[in-house]
Amino acid sequence: MSEPIALDAMGGDHAPHEIVAGAVHAVRERGLSVVLVGSPRVLYEALVDHDATKEIPIVRAEESLAMDEGALASLRRPRSSIAIACHLVRRGDAGSVVSAGSTAGIVATGKLRLKAQQGVLRPAIAVALPTRPTPTLLLDAGANAEVKPEMLVQFAQLGTAYAQVAYGMERPRVGLLTIGSEEEKGTKLVKRAHELLRTTQGVHFIGNVEGQDLLTGAADVIVTDGFTGNVALKTMEGAVRYAFTELRESIEDSRVAKMGAFLQKKRMRELYHRLDAEAHGGAVLLGLNGTVVIAHGSSKAPAISAACQLAADLSGKSIVTRIAERTHRPHRLW
Amino acid sequence: MSEPIALDAMGGDHAPHEIVAGAVHAVRERGLSVVLVGSPRVLYEALVDHDATKEIPIVRAEESLAMDEGALASLRRPRSSIAIACHLVRRGDAGSVVSAGSTAGIVATGKLRLKAQQGVLRPAIAVALPTRPTPTLLLDAGANAEVKPEMLVQFAQLGTAYAQVAYGMERPRVGLLTIGSEEEKGTKLVKRAHELLRTTQGVHFIGNVEGQDLLTGAADVIVTDGFTGNVALKTMEGAVRYAFTELRESIEDSRVAKMGAFLQKKRMRELYHRLDAEAHGGAVLLGLNGTVVIAHGSSKAPAISAACQLAADLSGKSIVTRIAERTHRPHRLW
Repeated sequence: MSEPIALDAMGGDHAPHEIVAGAVHAVRERGLSVVLVGSPRVLYEALVDHDATKEIPIVRAEESLAMDEGALASLRRPRSSIAIACHLVRRGDAGSVVSAGSTAGIVATGKLRLKAQQGVLRPAIAVALPTRPTPTLLLDAGANAEVKPEMLVQFAQLGTAYAQVAYGMERPRVGLLTIGSEEEKGTKLVKRAHELLRTTQGVHFIGNVEGQDLLTGAADVIVTDGFTGNVALKTMEGAVRYAFTELRESIEDSRVAKMGAFLQKKRMRELYHRLDAEAHGGAVLLGLNGTVVIAHGSSKAPAISAACQLAADLSGKSIVTRIAERTHRPHRLW
Repeated sequence: MSEPIALDAMGGDHAPHEIVAGAVHAVRERGLSVVLVGSPRVLYEALVDHDATKEIPIVRAEESLAMDEGALASLRRPRSSIAIACHLVRRGDAGSVVSAGSTAGIVATGKLRLKAQQGVLRPAIAVALPTRPTPTLLLDAGANAEVKPEMLVQFAQLGTAYAQVAYGMERPRVGLLTIGSEEEKGTKLVKRAHELLRTTQGVHFIGNVEGQDLLTGAADVIVTDGFTGNVALKTMEGAVRYAFTELRESIEDSRVAKMGAFLQKKRMRELYHRLDAEAHGGAVLLGLNGTVVIAHGSSKAPAISAACQLAADLSGKSIVTRIAERTHRPHRLW
């Protein structure tokens, strides 16, 4: 029996009903163990709707972070559902946390309640981009706007551990995001990180990559600072939406193509939703003493259930231990 | 009669033939005045093919920058076609420069030969993104990897002047690219630039924008450092390509949609090429003593002709003067 997942039932645009429905799916269809954290009265009623009150326990949290609340709210609300979920992991009552709440709130609360693993300079958000056959991991996707070269090296270690645990890759190829392959290009940060990465043990560094490489599978792990990573991720999201909108209008304008248009539009919509969800579904806050999966704020039941699966996979194969092996350098006492 | 455009005929993946064909189009169909800069023998032969030797003059440049040569090559090759083109503008023999050569080479050569306008801290690359009804200008798209807050403020001024001259906008809305609307998010650079922009005369600052806003028309001008801007631009390019590839495969997989598939694919390809070209066609190096338009390296004749039109428009309405009015603060001598 795997350790239960502490699911923040109050976070997300569709909380609590879609979160509860996702939990029911994860338990019944995936055989996972889930604990719901949030308002007992509300959650009990939601479980009644699924006839699942006996399958899924509830842990009380009377407060929650609003979606537009940022990092500071985590300090103001020590009894929020996300804080209690982290507390369950810290006490050993759960193996991982899943939340669709505000990213800033989850990151701040996770760092405050679970603390960074020993040896980890800065926890980072890893997002799985929908490349094929395996995803490309982008990190940091927004936890650290400003970083030092040594942190980029650690992000490479965190991402390597993730790719090994989640996708069974032996030597994930790590690329450094920058703006050109030429020596003189890029920032001081990137140039220094490049030097360090070339000699980092346990990281298969393949060199610089550029923005257009994010979705081609050119690397298995792409590291960058949280500012650039977040801008790139959101730009990608916007560009995909733009391409689909333009194409839909182009189809609607076209008389000759009208015949197939209805069916095409349906497929396009399906594909768009898949890309949209996949681009976000796999966000994981790496480097804490516990696994924290950040589901997209707009997640509905299937995305929540998938996020629970990811949390169970990572905590079952212990991503935390794997990261510790890579980043922890014991003090030499003699 | 407008001032001639000095067209670097040796720069670009399809130089010199597509460049020459673009020049012929610009002269015959757009009524522009163009001077070709490059190897006289090669260019003369190319003009013979178009029966255009009497319409388009050639200025000799025996050297050229290779597409993979970076900024340093501009120093090593003082007689390159791009250097000579800049020289023509400096001497007053041409009003603007158009090149499809290496961006790094054009930027370095332009700065060296034309110099920054008085008062301009750093010239920047502005790219017109294909939003509707009018493009959104993104700058800096890669000329300056590392910037100071004051430079971001100037980029806002450069972009405002561009939008006013090129699109006739009275008060272009300027957004600052960052990673969240919350106060505590973003880098020190962005936070300081935000403060400065709020009180900058002549700039209609509408606040922070995020990556997903680049293609929605949420702002007319979006400013960022050249590292983030270049990553965002290339990410956008890659994401659009990805979306189209995925959709094409999805259509090919679908039996039920096969009927319309052939026509759909054709339309999709057309749209993709339009987006791809538009995302790059409008790159302008702003802030020099002369107009420099950077065409995409893969430009064929129509894109070169369009780049010539942009150069003529900007130099005719004198973007240089407009920028000078905004950035030049005369020394007070008494």
